[in-house]
Amino acid sequence: MAQLSFEFPDGSVKEFDAGINTEDIAKSISISLAKKAVAGKVDGEMVGLNTPLEKGGKIEIITKDSAEALPVLRRTAAQLLKAALADTFMGIRFGESTADEDGFFVDTDKEDRQVSADELDGLAEKMDALVKADVKLETKVLSLDDALKQVDGDPYQAKLVRKLAKDDKVVFYQIGDYLGLGEGVVLPSAKPLKFFKLLSVAGAYWEGKSSNPMLQRIFGTAFFKKDDLEADLKQRQEARERDHRVIGNQLDLFFVDPKVGAGLAYWMPNGATVRRVIERYIVDKEVNSGYQHVVTPVLMNLDVYKTSGHWAHYREDMFPPMDMGDGEELELRPMNCPSHIQIYNHHIRSYRDLPMRIAELGMMHRFEKSGALSGLQRVREMTLNDGHTFVAPDQIQEEFKKILHLMMDVYNDFDIKEYHFRLSYRDPKNTEKYFADDEMWNKSQSMLKGAMDELGLDYVEAEGEAAFYGPKLDVQTYTALGNEETLSTIQLDFMLPERFDLHYVGEDGKEHRPVMIHRGIVSTMERFVAYLIEQYKGAFPTWLAPKQVKIIPVSEEKHGDYARKVNEQLRKLGIRSEVDERAEKMGYLIRDAQTHKIPYTLVVGDEEVKNNNVSVRRYGHDDSNTASVADFETQIKNDIDNYSREN
Amino acid sequence: MAQLSFEFPDGSVKEFDAGINTEDIAKSISISLAKKAVAGKVDGEMVGLNTPLEKGGKIEIITKDSAEALPVLRRTAAQLLKAALADTFMGIRFGESTADEDGFFVDTDKEDRQVSADELDGLAEKMDALVKADVKLETKVLSLDDALKQVDGDPYQAKLVRKLAKDDKVVFYQIGDYLGLGEGVVLPSAKPLKFFKLLSVAGAYWEGKSSNPMLQRIFGTAFFKKDDLEADLKQRQEARERDHRVIGNQLDLFFVDPKVGAGLAYWMPNGATVRRVIERYIVDKEVNSGYQHVVTPVLMNLDVYKTSGHWAHYREDMFPPMDMGDGEELELRPMNCPSHIQIYNHHIRSYRDLPMRIAELGMMHRFEKSGALSGLQRVREMTLNDGHTFVAPDQIQEEFKKILHLMMDVYNDFDIKEYHFRLSYRDPKNTEKYFADDEMWNKSQSMLKGAMDELGLDYVEAEGEAAFYGPKLDVQTYTALGNEETLSTIQLDFMLPERFDLHYVGEDGKEHRPVMIHRGIVSTMERFVAYLIEQYKGAFPTWLAPKQVKIIPVSEEKHGDYARKVNEQLRKLGIRSEVDERAEKMGYLIRDAQTHKIPYTLVVGDEEVKNNNVSVRRYGHDDSNTASVADFETQIKNDIDNYSREN
Repeated sequence: MAQLSFEFPDGSVKEFDAGINTEDIAKSISISLAKKAVAGKVDGEMVGLNTPLEKGGKIEIITKDSAEALPVLRRTAAQLLKAALADTFMGIRFGESTADEDGFFVDTDKEDRQVSADELDGLAEKMDALVKADVKLETKVLSLDDALKQVDGDPYQAKLVRKLAKDDKVVFYQIGDYLGLGEGVVLPSAKPLKFFKLLSVAGAYWEGKSSNPMLQRIFGTAFFKKDDLEADLKQRQEARERDHRVIGNQLDLFFVDPKVGAGLAYWMPNGATVRRVIERYIVDKEVNSGYQHVVTPVLMNLDVYKTSGHWAHYREDMFPPMDMGDGEELELRPMNCPSHIQIYNHHIRSYRDLPMRIAELGMMHRFEKSGALSGLQRVREMTLNDGHTFVAPDQIQEEFKKILHLMMDVYNDFDIKEYHFRLSYRDPKNTEKYFADDEMWNKSQSMLKGAMDELGLDYVEAEGEAAFYGPKLDVQTYTALGNEETLSTIQLDFMLPERFDLHYVGEDGKEHRPVMIHRGIVSTMERFVAYLIEQYKGAFPTWLAPKQVKIIPVSEEKHGDYARKVNEQLRKLGIRSEVDERAEKMGYLIRDAQTHKIPYTLVVGDEEVKNNNVSVRRYGHDDSNTASVADFETQIKNDIDNYSREN
Repeated sequence: MAQLSFEFPDGSVKEFDAGINTEDIAKSISISLAKKAVAGKVDGEMVGLNTPLEKGGKIEIITKDSAEALPVLRRTAAQLLKAALADTFMGIRFGESTADEDGFFVDTDKEDRQVSADELDGLAEKMDALVKADVKLETKVLSLDDALKQVDGDPYQAKLVRKLAKDDKVVFYQIGDYLGLGEGVVLPSAKPLKFFKLLSVAGAYWEGKSSNPMLQRIFGTAFFKKDDLEADLKQRQEARERDHRVIGNQLDLFFVDPKVGAGLAYWMPNGATVRRVIERYIVDKEVNSGYQHVVTPVLMNLDVYKTSGHWAHYREDMFPPMDMGDGEELELRPMNCPSHIQIYNHHIRSYRDLPMRIAELGMMHRFEKSGALSGLQRVREMTLNDGHTFVAPDQIQEEFKKILHLMMDVYNDFDIKEYHFRLSYRDPKNTEKYFADDEMWNKSQSMLKGAMDELGLDYVEAEGEAAFYGPKLDVQTYTALGNEETLSTIQLDFMLPERFDLHYVGEDGKEHRPVMIHRGIVSTMERFVAYLIEQYKGAFPTWLAPKQVKIIPVSEEKHGDYARKVNEQLRKLGIRSEVDERAEKMGYLIRDAQTHKIPYTLVVGDEEVKNNNVSVRRYGHDDSNTASVADFETQIKNDIDNYSREN
């Protein structure tokens, strides 16, 4: 029998008979390793524990502790779920199924009726029974022809079979009576699948295209340890409670309707109010910091994006151009930089004008894949709190610090605390991949680092993460769903000034090239509001709350007029107050105000009317205190002026 | 000889020999009529005074007093200008020439160099010489072939010859040596052309298409009376001084650059500041008047515009749709109504929610012809102060009055006084041309009229001027160039609620159809700012001025710190103040502040520093007064808070 040679991660080499499997190799090392083994990896390719090996190479034993083990366990769960589904729903068809670090899902299509959420428990029980019976997942390798016969009548599976076929062979797994298409390595036995959960059902288009049929996607997750499963379920619950899409709906902040446009957000009055407060706040802040706010068109001649390089390198993220006749093609802008360059170039600039800070609430359009769209977090139309500073090269560090100060100031006002800085440099081993100006790169990278150190800010350094056109600083946070995203960014750009041939007249009377700094403080209105919703769990601090005060008269007849008088007084101060005039029980109205997370609920009854008082209840508190109207006014004005966040 | 029969405007009929001309017919009536005669009109077609008539018909003698006489005089002037140009510039080519109620122009193309403005006087002298010599304009009728030979080497004229040829014949006028293409009826002699003026030169594309060569367009005007010419020139001068495009450039408010997009405005920091103040003003005003401001996407699925009827009836004013794949076509919205309908329809509405007032600073795109574009007045991208009120039919009159109140309030704040109301009804003789609901039309028209009468407002009634979908009220004004335009509008709409199947649940628990009211108070930001620039001649009232205060230290060294201290104090109050730190003479800096129409100039010298005072100079005043900083703060805050306009 042929001998195969395997090299282990520690560098040792062993010989085995051809046809040996990973499990036996593990056993040859130690029984405890074999017990923990989940799969093997030969020359980087995953293999099943009991797959006979026909070639040697570098081998790795994937154990339960490895990050790669969970997808194997979850793929096993997905396979068992398919078996349970096939057993429960006659003629059910299967779309894709996937398992990864987040969980697993199986897409299903049942022509006459859909799988519903309350059937998940029954399915989980069937899977449990298979696990308890320690059912095996036997690998069957079919020829393409036989495989197509096996999935006959299921067009999705037929397409998948063709996609997955390798050298005319397709892997299936036999689980009891059920022979299901394999979509990756699984465990040989169902036994380790003790801690799993079927989570939810949602619609999903076949192949992610809205022109294709809508399938039912069943989500689940699985772990090797009970604690891990419980921690994950708890985290999912918390994420659901923070999810900006859920809260956005509860508080009537915004909606997206793919029928009128995927990724296009409608800001309802409540959401639009939050957005307006933020917009005014940031514009005023920037104007006071020396920025000149402008308004520029969302459309631009396509030629400009050819000059900028966006059309060559960024085209797939851009909307289709519009033919205006007369040879003019207009393009919805994917970024605002070329617009601000028009503003810069509208006059001759001198060194006295620098740093020149141009800012805008700039609407942009990006052709995000429809599968990537998510609430306000990923949209196709967005308004960026954008700014471009044009500086002389020796002003980079000072300006960078000024922007950082502005950023920290804003973070403080919004009570943003969970983030980290990432400073991105060019890859020193591949300098030819970047804009060619060694001196500029070296100087500016050390300027950015120097500024961060001087301000005593922690940061990670990421070599090779810079943009083609210059180094950058990003502020990173996490969404409720655990996705990392960029909240703010400061990017140096040596390239666009070159491409658009920008100048300023120096003190020497000669023309010099400025450097551009792209910066966003609160990112797009869409992303920022999504972030804040999750951050605050919908309980906006008073200054941002769409409704700040709800006044509830104990009896509309007896106290309604007084409530309206107080309301008028507050509204004159610019406070977003309203009277709840509905003929409902007071307890209900108070609970309703709390459900809507309104910062202040004022109840007014006989005592309050008599003494010109209000009974004040803060959001999230069960008790209330009595205050004169004047004192309450002072309190809430203070609250607003100091951007205070009690919750 | 054949006899022709002519019927005069008074109904009388006379017979003349065939071949008689208008001049002789006029003489047959009276010598004084013949003296005033400028041209004839037979069966509605203009004819030259000395053109032999070969057919009878209804005849009219056009005299100097008639509105139709001036174009004839001006066309004569254009013809003389061409003769003078041909005499001055060898090988000059001519594009179109036109004469109308505004003046005349001749398009020219000289390959090696362009006609410049300082050559206009020389050309006018040559024209004058022709007039003094009483040169004749002899009509020559050429065959098409001969005409093409005559204009050989001038491709523009060749194209015009083909266009103007009638029955293979083309009219030319001989003026001395010059034989020029006729482009309409002229005077037989240059003699009456005593009062004319060549006004300006500007570039104009051949046939108005930007892909065609740019020609030089020479503008002029002419009158029969000296007083009329002088009055016109004075008015042109005033219009130039008010022209928002001229002022927009002087004050660095905005620019439009066809190279990056025709009709797409760039708001420079000064213009963007004015716009921002207006936007915040109107949004706050509306929120306080019970409007709910929203933000909705500029893009929408084309299907919605098919439902609304815009795609069928308004398509040529819309931008080309964008194919997003998966069968989705997106369209830049030409109006905001369908977006607000989405907001209305997002929840079930009840009679308690009505009137429901949805407002937005809504960006829209309209595909205006490039020839119609003008500064900020006619653009392709615009942001409308839009609002839609959804009412029960019996709420129309109350809501209409509420909107009118808001409108008058706003006009008062902006000091807008020159406008008139136009109430547009359906044509009672063609009711089938309108949305079919007789009762609704009759009731609502009388509701609008009733409201206007009740408020004691003057208005004109325009039968047949209503939109298809309902009656409306427009507020009309005039631009500096004399074009009538709509500043505000209130339009009832019975149709869209039907098309989008809108409902509200009535007190009876049943579904009812609401009526929509479209309304714009300050129109689009673009048009409104253009209007205000012309209205104020660039001297914005303090609350709107991009820069409100300029502080000038007498000596930067001695008084600079004090100037900056005062500046900081004012800026903390939210006042747009800045210090002029340039090393220029004080007189120059004060003049410069006046040129930029800054409401307040503060000069600070020894005396002011010593007494904590400022020397205050109001825009447009030659004198100044001394005030304490605190008193000045009170003065300017008052000025701003009261929207006061001193100029």
